[in-house]
Amino acid sequence: MKNTFGNSVAVTIFGESHGEYIGAVIDGLAPGIKVDTEYIAHMLTLRRPDGKISTPRKEKDEFKIVSGVVAGTTTGTAITILIPNENVQSGDYSQMKTVARPSHADYTAQCKYHGYQDSRGGGHFSGRITAALVAAGAICRYALMQKGILIGTHVKKCAGVSDREFGNLCVDITELNDKTFAVLDEAAGEDMVKAILQAASEGDSVGGVLETVITGVPAGVGEPWFDSVESMLSHMMFSIPAVKGIEFGLGFGIADMRGSEANDPIRMDGDKVITETNNNGGINGGITNGMPIIFRTAIKPTPTIFKPQNTIDFKTMTETVLEPKGRHDPAIVHRARIVQDAASAIVLCDALAMRFGTDYLK
Amino acid sequence: MKNTFGNSVAVTIFGESHGEYIGAVIDGLAPGIKVDTEYIAHMLTLRRPDGKISTPRKEKDEFKIVSGVVAGTTTGTAITILIPNENVQSGDYSQMKTVARPSHADYTAQCKYHGYQDSRGGGHFSGRITAALVAAGAICRYALMQKGILIGTHVKKCAGVSDREFGNLCVDITELNDKTFAVLDEAAGEDMVKAILQAASEGDSVGGVLETVITGVPAGVGEPWFDSVESMLSHMMFSIPAVKGIEFGLGFGIADMRGSEANDPIRMDGDKVITETNNNGGINGGITNGMPIIFRTAIKPTPTIFKPQNTIDFKTMTETVLEPKGRHDPAIVHRARIVQDAASAIVLCDALAMRFGTDYLK
Amino acid sequence: MKNTFGNSVAVTIFGESHGEYIGAVIDGLAPGIKVDTEYIAHMLTLRRPDGKISTPRKEKDEFKIVSGVVAGTTTGTAITILIPNENVQSGDYSQMKTVARPSHADYTAQCKYHGYQDSRGGGHFSGRITAALVAAGAICRYALMQKGILIGTHVKKCAGVSDREFGNLCVDITELNDKTFAVLDEAAGEDMVKAILQAASEGDSVGGVLETVITGVPAGVGEPWFDSVESMLSHMMFSIPAVKGIEFGLGFGIADMRGSEANDPIRMDGDKVITETNNNGGINGGITNGMPIIFRTAIKPTPTIFKPQNTIDFKTMTETVLEPKGRHDPAIVHRARIVQDAASAIVLCDALAMRFGTDYLK
Amino acid sequence: MKNTFGNSVAVTIFGESHGEYIGAVIDGLAPGIKVDTEYIAHMLTLRRPDGKISTPRKEKDEFKIVSGVVAGTTTGTAITILIPNENVQSGDYSQMKTVARPSHADYTAQCKYHGYQDSRGGGHFSGRITAALVAAGAICRYALMQKGILIGTHVKKCAGVSDREFGNLCVDITELNDKTFAVLDEAAGEDMVKAILQAASEGDSVGGVLETVITGVPAGVGEPWFDSVESMLSHMMFSIPAVKGIEFGLGFGIADMRGSEANDPIRMDGDKVITETNNNGGINGGITNGMPIIFRTAIKPTPTIFKPQNTIDFKTMTETVLEPKGRHDPAIVHRARIVQDAASAIVLCDALAMRFGTDYLK
Repeated sequence: MKNTFGNSVAVTIFGESHGEYIGAVIDGLAPGIKVDTEYIAHMLTLRRPDGKISTPRKEKDEFKIVSGVVAGTTTGTAITILIPNENVQSGDYSQMKTVARPSHADYTAQCKYHGYQDSRGGGHFSGRITAALVAAGAICRYALMQKGILIGTHVKKCAGVSDREFGNLCVDITELNDKTFAVLDEAAGEDMVKAILQAASEGDSVGGVLETVITGVPAGVGEPWFDSVESMLSHMMFSIPAVKGIEFGLGFGIADMRGSEANDPIRMDGDKVITETNNNGGINGGITNGMPIIFRTAIKPTPTIFKPQNTIDFKTMTETVLEPKGRHDPAIVHRARIVQDAASAIVLCDALAMRFGTDYLK
Repeated sequence: MKNTFGNSVAVTIFGESHGEYIGAVIDGLAPGIKVDTEYIAHMLTLRRPDGKISTPRKEKDEFKIVSGVVAGTTTGTAITILIPNENVQSGDYSQMKTVARPSHADYTAQCKYHGYQDSRGGGHFSGRITAALVAAGAICRYALMQKGILIGTHVKKCAGVSDREFGNLCVDITELNDKTFAVLDEAAGEDMVKAILQAASEGDSVGGVLETVITGVPAGVGEPWFDSVESMLSHMMFSIPAVKGIEFGLGFGIADMRGSEANDPIRMDGDKVITETNNNGGINGGITNGMPIIFRTAIKPTPTIFKPQNTIDFKTMTETVLEPKGRHDPAIVHRARIVQDAASAIVLCDALAMRFGTDYLK
Repeated sequence: MKNTFGNSVAVTIFGESHGEYIGAVIDGLAPGIKVDTEYIAHMLTLRRPDGKISTPRKEKDEFKIVSGVVAGTTTGTAITILIPNENVQSGDYSQMKTVARPSHADYTAQCKYHGYQDSRGGGHFSGRITAALVAAGAICRYALMQKGILIGTHVKKCAGVSDREFGNLCVDITELNDKTFAVLDEAAGEDMVKAILQAASEGDSVGGVLETVITGVPAGVGEPWFDSVESMLSHMMFSIPAVKGIEFGLGFGIADMRGSEANDPIRMDGDKVITETNNNGGINGGITNGMPIIFRTAIKPTPTIFKPQNTIDFKTMTETVLEPKGRHDPAIVHRARIVQDAASAIVLCDALAMRFGTDYLK
Repeated sequence: MKNTFGNSVAVTIFGESHGEYIGAVIDGLAPGIKVDTEYIAHMLTLRRPDGKISTPRKEKDEFKIVSGVVAGTTTGTAITILIPNENVQSGDYSQMKTVARPSHADYTAQCKYHGYQDSRGGGHFSGRITAALVAAGAICRYALMQKGILIGTHVKKCAGVSDREFGNLCVDITELNDKTFAVLDEAAGEDMVKAILQAASEGDSVGGVLETVITGVPAGVGEPWFDSVESMLSHMMFSIPAVKGIEFGLGFGIADMRGSEANDPIRMDGDKVITETNNNGGINGGITNGMPIIFRTAIKPTPTIFKPQNTIDFKTMTETVLEPKGRHDPAIVHRARIVQDAASAIVLCDALAMRFGTDYLK
């Protein structure tokens, strides 16, 4: 449903880049969950542009929670988070932008909303809206942490530079979570930043790959067909702007393998069932098997670049050349990673509540 | 919702490999749509194992439509298709299979259903159930064709052999639709079959990549956030067994590009808006832009192989070695392609009805 | 969603009066629930016309369960029940009935389905379809019984004759469940039957009021706003043909009271919280309070009567007079009661699974 | 889904009586609809307590729209309305109220939320939250008006005093909409107010019956089974606090009739199909027939009264006597009518968009 995701735990997001507030409503989260505003603020900080390799737009993200939380604890009813938009420079509000930026949603928004869409700063399609997703997801993620479920995402690849593989998941996740530029190998991260700055200096942008790992999810969650865990996670991930691909476990790599290489042998680890490899990313037949859930997403290069591009004016339906000005990111992959963490947390809260009831995260 | 997909057009599937029927209910499809049983039968034939590179299980798929269709035309109310299971060789029904086949759903089904799952022939997790999806999707696909919306899938890659790129989409789609082994380049197809047979001769299996193209979808369909067209399609595709990845347009390939390479320049083609390239696969900001929708899925190698594999017996919770016997496919990628066509058709019927109303496909 | 109801436990119904099968798919019911086919058959018998005060159509209701049940026990995956239509007398299939029966769905179906609806015997709008609801509900109801949740409905009023009030609920419910004509006071029941036969002899029909009581539902089920227990139950009840009203507890009677009369005082009964009266029908603020849930529905007189009625032919759009012939019920209230029981059971299974998880009814 | 209603047009509400904001998100409303803030303010005024027969709590309802509206027009994306809570007198926030008010949601909230619920001023269960529903519904209702669909509700009965029947619907609806105490017969209204004041003077409260009529809805809207128009409307109406019953057309009155009296004869009115009577309230088989939709709801007397009542303290689980103090309404039926108007508008927007597409109300 458009701007609402979830069945038992449902998140609704709203807002435009230059409106008064963006925000989210989280409905169905169990009562009695501690809501750590420092943690939410920290997550929002990690999403925020840092000025060097991101848009210089200042976003303070001074969110407030206006419903569903009393004395730092969830009440069990709908939680609403508001994030004011500050530092807005909309210019002439009355003039609709009608030159479509290539590979943006400008033209598709026009087809869907017939000119009534808010076009200021990307409107409802702005990456800015992901701040609401991050705030909502931060509450979910914190709740999951209390149940031993950890989520971590790193920039697996950016501008052709690759990070190292995950090693000890607990250690790696913990380290990642405090990093502004989330890589496991700092040297690789520095190379990525250099490559981003290089692209920026040329008026261009870069993309990348994000890898997320989720540990501690019990076996037996998810559904055999249409609500497979992969279905739910991918549904959510493709809601994040710029995501153009997702793969679980070995993903596209598994397509080139033989079954004898790809299959994950099962064995006992004490009284726990584990697999020796995790090529299926923790999911078999749509249902979790107790191993870490692993997936990667492809993040396209930021479509706004500072080079002339052929496009159309969809008001006059004539061809024109666009030379964008303003504040934009030469890369968003490092910022999207916290969105991916948050979005994953929302999916898991919903899936766990569907499986074990609405009090599960209490 | 588990076994139901869709909001305005909703498909429910049911059945087990060795039950009396598998089937589907399609609800919400417009009244007055011609239902071509020959076409459905043809689609089921394309999904059916052919004996050489597939399981020798004979599946006649003598489906019948028992509701929602009168005089070969949809009534507008729920359509139910039943497909009897024939040639069932269940052996001892009373003995629950408790040795988990690696990378199958055996163990996860146990975690979810606590031993009550039907384990005969894979039960509800059997690829057999996709016949129901194909039959339901065939009705949807036929309806879309009447509106000029065409869907085609080819085996882009299998066992390391690649098919050629799509060329003229109309021609290619039409050709693909009649092929048992859907490749654009027959020579590549022959190499794939050889590679599959080679793997089979070694008791092994192979995977592959499927590529789907959908033409004729109007611009302006889909939602900005949680019901992006990518979200809806990926949700559905990950319901198909063995799919472990999906990518739209350039997908993971776009992650290595710069914005200046990746962006799709827009121009006029007469009075129609088109893009010069289609790196975004026909979707911007979650909404269709009128260009062909293009996506690829990663199909893992069939997990059932004829080599000894380490696993556990989940009844005794002890380790054991599995040496599967029975009828199995060394590859399913060529059969999965018709499932992907059908599943795509269901998603589109739903998305179009949500956008334009329940009579749109009439 | 049209023909699907429920979030965690979802029921889909399908079929037409003169099609091959009607049926239902129950998805999401916990694994390990005993499925008693005798019980289902008994419920179907109670719904079946008995020939004296009902249509003489013979319905054997030889249902079969074709998925989701193995060895008499739910597997946890979608359960499909098929009920063949027998004794069908469709006459000329090719001739669409275009004279609208007043207060039937003939004309509204035409407006919605544009002439493609199956008009034979009422098609998808036939009360016949409720047999599928009864079969699906019977499985749910049996599952609830194992958890101590009992459901009973009596004909509170029919043709102006009233049954007595509920007394000892356990005793009354048990007695009701075996009765063909479910009244608490046999004498009242006999008067009702007489009144029905009198109406029938005049070519007319009668309506009535059904009262349902549900005991054993734990406190704390339901949602504060849009998914209140009253919302869920009423949503379902208005799906039953002929229901034109529903009221909980005192219902419309409470509208004339003062708060001091209407409020239910609360007290302890041992360590259990109870209310002295139950004017709110077991629900406060949309959420169960542990007291019996009580509601009544208004069932309109069967619209098919054997008297001339003014109406239109919606093909020619001209006025005409209808004099129905064929097999029809002079009353359906006594048959609808088992539908109401069954439908209630479906709602409760869904609400309980949403609250306590998918294994709750195991 | 708890606090979200609707499929194509979805409304989410949030907030607590003593939180910073209450509010609503309306998602899926067509782009290009004029949003008249004066109209919304007027609707909120009609819901507001007026001091004489209502709680003296001052509610200014200075709402603001923070997303989804630009230049007084819907953009087509999620609309968020915030209404600040003013004049809050929460007293000691730290002390949970644990004495359950009879027939309130206090005890059921405790069972569901385990003591974490916000108990200040009724929290999330407060009638205050209906202001959000009114604001959201006002936008929907205004949009419907532009399409010729009018909604009006009057106090059919209050404290035993009855209003007159509807006459000329257009005239009556127009008159009702400007009235603070919505009756068709002013003299009856005065008697009702007197009766309310009498009850108030005795520390007691009264209930009533609301009747809603909706004109201009096209025929063919709604679904045959689970999403009948009655199902959708009743689902929504039982979300309004204090509603304990709903009936369509003649409702419970039809249960005592014979078919020959109850059936609505159909005839032509020029080229329009109408029924001579409207005993079915504009709906047959769950689908609109083009006649006015008519329904009535039973509103229970405000449970908060100023008389001692037996109850329990659910913290100590001991019996006690409650003597409420504070600000409360001796009747809410006259305020609930605007909530009923608004809630009806939301349902209709959703049903129409499902039927005719998301641009229907544009």
